[in-house]
Amino acid sequence: MNKMKRNAISPTRAENYAEWYQQVVDAAELAENSPVRGCMVIRPWGHALWENMQRELDDMFKATGHRNAYFPLLIPMSLLEKEAEHVDGFAKECAVVTHHRLIHSADGSLIPDPAAELEEPLIIRPTSETIVGVMFAKWIQSYRDLPLLINQWANVFRWEMRTRLFLRTSEFLWQEGHTAHETESEAREEATRMLDIYTHFVEDYLAIPVIRGVKSDSERFPGAIDTYAIEAMMGDCKALQAGTSHFLGQNFAKAAGIEFQGRERGSRQFAWTTSWGASTRLIGALIMVHGDDDGIVLPPRIAPAQVVILPIHRSDDARASVDDYVDLVANQLRSMHFADRRVRVEIDRRESRGGQKQWEWIKKGVPIRLEIGLRDRESGSVTLSRRDRDTSEKISVLLADLPETVMSLFDEIQRGCFERARRFRSENTCTISDKGDFADFFKPRTEQQTDARGGFALAAWCGDKTCESWAKEALNVTIRCLPFDQSHEDVGSGCIVCGKPRSIVALFAKNY
Amino acid sequence: MNKMKRNAISPTRAENYAEWYQQVVDAAELAENSPVRGCMVIRPWGHALWENMQRELDDMFKATGHRNAYFPLLIPMSLLEKEAEHVDGFAKECAVVTHHRLIHSADGSLIPDPAAELEEPLIIRPTSETIVGVMFAKWIQSYRDLPLLINQWANVFRWEMRTRLFLRTSEFLWQEGHTAHETESEAREEATRMLDIYTHFVEDYLAIPVIRGVKSDSERFPGAIDTYAIEAMMGDCKALQAGTSHFLGQNFAKAAGIEFQGRERGSRQFAWTTSWGASTRLIGALIMVHGDDDGIVLPPRIAPAQVVILPIHRSDDARASVDDYVDLVANQLRSMHFADRRVRVEIDRRESRGGQKQWEWIKKGVPIRLEIGLRDRESGSVTLSRRDRDTSEKISVLLADLPETVMSLFDEIQRGCFERARRFRSENTCTISDKGDFADFFKPRTEQQTDARGGFALAAWCGDKTCESWAKEALNVTIRCLPFDQSHEDVGSGCIVCGKPRSIVALFAKNY
Repeated sequence: MNKMKRNAISPTRAENYAEWYQQVVDAAELAENSPVRGCMVIRPWGHALWENMQRELDDMFKATGHRNAYFPLLIPMSLLEKEAEHVDGFAKECAVVTHHRLIHSADGSLIPDPAAELEEPLIIRPTSETIVGVMFAKWIQSYRDLPLLINQWANVFRWEMRTRLFLRTSEFLWQEGHTAHETESEAREEATRMLDIYTHFVEDYLAIPVIRGVKSDSERFPGAIDTYAIEAMMGDCKALQAGTSHFLGQNFAKAAGIEFQGRERGSRQFAWTTSWGASTRLIGALIMVHGDDDGIVLPPRIAPAQVVILPIHRSDDARASVDDYVDLVANQLRSMHFADRRVRVEIDRRESRGGQKQWEWIKKGVPIRLEIGLRDRESGSVTLSRRDRDTSEKISVLLADLPETVMSLFDEIQRGCFERARRFRSENTCTISDKGDFADFFKPRTEQQTDARGGFALAAWCGDKTCESWAKEALNVTIRCLPFDQSHEDVGSGCIVCGKPRSIVALFAKNY
Repeated sequence: MNKMKRNAISPTRAENYAEWYQQVVDAAELAENSPVRGCMVIRPWGHALWENMQRELDDMFKATGHRNAYFPLLIPMSLLEKEAEHVDGFAKECAVVTHHRLIHSADGSLIPDPAAELEEPLIIRPTSETIVGVMFAKWIQSYRDLPLLINQWANVFRWEMRTRLFLRTSEFLWQEGHTAHETESEAREEATRMLDIYTHFVEDYLAIPVIRGVKSDSERFPGAIDTYAIEAMMGDCKALQAGTSHFLGQNFAKAAGIEFQGRERGSRQFAWTTSWGASTRLIGALIMVHGDDDGIVLPPRIAPAQVVILPIHRSDDARASVDDYVDLVANQLRSMHFADRRVRVEIDRRESRGGQKQWEWIKKGVPIRLEIGLRDRESGSVTLSRRDRDTSEKISVLLADLPETVMSLFDEIQRGCFERARRFRSENTCTISDKGDFADFFKPRTEQQTDARGGFALAAWCGDKTCESWAKEALNVTIRCLPFDQSHEDVGSGCIVCGKPRSIVALFAKNY
């Protein structure tokens, strides 16, 4: 039989990737635009995903000795100015608070009260290095106070003109770590440790393979000495930075006066600091790495619901009997643990058509669906389907086998997500040594995909900003990172742009 | 032997309550002022307390069907204007964003870029009813979409001129629930249910007894029909509102257009909404209810560390042996559960004098301290002291008995905190029927305590705003609530102020 395959999301990825993304976010009720320009509303399903991310990361941060704190939302303009590169990086796109009161004007409408203008404008934090620095300078007096390992979960604000849900919004949620150390090597170690944690989280929980490396000067965090990052390939072959960790040297310590009594009597030293962050962008990455033409696909370790149960009532008589059985199944699953967390089960008892409910959960990406009707109860089984398989593929599982089956499916689905993503990345990654090939690689393939395709190109780079700029201007391609793994022999012996003897292998890609 | 009792906190509560409070916050490293006017920094110990509060409340909200979401930080001025009472309540004290960029002026200093002035100013949310309303109007189409039960954990901002850490700061952290219902009675039920949850949390976790009631018109939330609240008595006999829940009627639904298709064909109705919140103020309440002249005292259910272990090393030889034993004890305790959470144990291995470390943990309020040295190891025991007893009071507990002892002490300390607070409140609560007695009750007792003492007075009130204002102006006393429990027969038959036949019993107090 020739079956017409219909998809839940229109357009498909192949038809229009950007619009597909927007439709997936909508269909899963993850987030939507608000009446406040550039600011999104994170809806319950999206927020539950973020809560799971927060919980896993927070546990990892705490296990490595970090503690949470909270710093002010507003930053005095003069504080921002203290680090020269930093202010240039952030002053251009920030929300500025200038008044502390509204009044009714003569015509009755509200206006900022001219009598309540602030002496010094405040900006909404785009990041908190400057304000954290002031506090660290107070808290750190001696080498005994080090290391100081702090994390903050917060909202931040960077004015954006063109926004996309999760990927680029003026306000977003994130965590920002801020640490101070006695020595340079300890600070560098910390910056690397946190990159390791991001790698572990993104690969093992979000099932997204990443490439680890250091940023080129032009992509460095404003004020940092070195910026480390993990880069992931999205479904349209563009790169997305999934986490970043900065070795700040003594730049911010000098700007804020984080000075301490060293081990040698009478010695005064500046601390070495780091900062690192990951944000709600990761939700965008999840969508674009695992999503298909039926919507988002969630790896079990991060899914708000790992199993959804859909009771099927064909007659009112059998309702109670089915409902009891559903509770039995749910309780059995909820008593189990997967990846050290209790299994998360949702029961959808709403009165709507079974098919419609099925599709809602498919679009929400729940890994396993269980349909349970009277016949299932009578045979002591459940009807199971998987998000990562065709929707028509259903198997019957005996209740006695369910725990084991579900556990091994979780593992299989989690691993499957990662492997599929790794295969896709590998199919779309080239090492290139010829400039013509390089330009060809990034040329749009079709009319619609003006900006997509191409992929990751590993190529030699002389280290010169001019060559980096050429790639940006000619091909809209940037250096995503200089991978820690430099063992790519077939990149040739000269810079991909100018041909000068190469110094380093760079990862080139279009990016979000 | 006549022992001089020295206290860790100076001044004592009796000497200067306001300054004592500040010193307790400092000594426990809970929070401090920041260089940003009116904004506090919540330090790790204070933040850990808040995290525990969040976790307990969040679980209670989810168990009653609420889901978390996130709404924009900034609110367009025009949205605020839609509910007339609401705008009057919040426009006077808000942070106004007017520009989206800074530039360097001619003299090189930063200024808001005149070319980047916003067409419509935005305010930092003082609360989110207005923006939530806009989204609810989109999400709610039919009675089938109701009830909609949402909660948000967020920072909010209300410009304050005179601030006190946790109690009154321009920025604070809170949760705000927002729900929409089909009928008035369901919405009222929800508002009451959430007040019940706050009561349960504040009494059973924070060990703070509260009085439940409804606010008078003048103390109502701007835009609400009814505001319910729980009121607690602090150590200086003043009242603090520990949680509040609003029945908003259809006011915000009409302002935002939250309209839905009713059960009857073709019928359109406005939703009935509620909102409810609790904030980091609760940390201030904890301090003032349980704190003593040695610092904060934490009820075990909310303490970031419930047990702190202090290893005592008298010689380097025995170090490893003591450390092994310390780990054994810690692991034993950590494997246990109290109030459904794993027991939280901190080990303080820092190299400083034992006495100094002891006092740090006393000032941080940890319920149980265990000192463990070589002698304890040899006798298979630990030396235990309690935060709620004299610091010199130490008992030796055999390791085999430790789990049971600690568990029963947790219960005893938790109950003890609550009982002490309840006794204190009852000693400082009067029912008063004579106006002269009423004025006397609230007259300052000593020079220092200009604002303190007095306590809770239950008295009859005619319901007239004029009488309420008199109390405010003459005695600086307000109606904290009209208690749900109206069974106070000895309040007399006439209003405490004007003598007119009483309509209701009111709780009068000075307040934070």
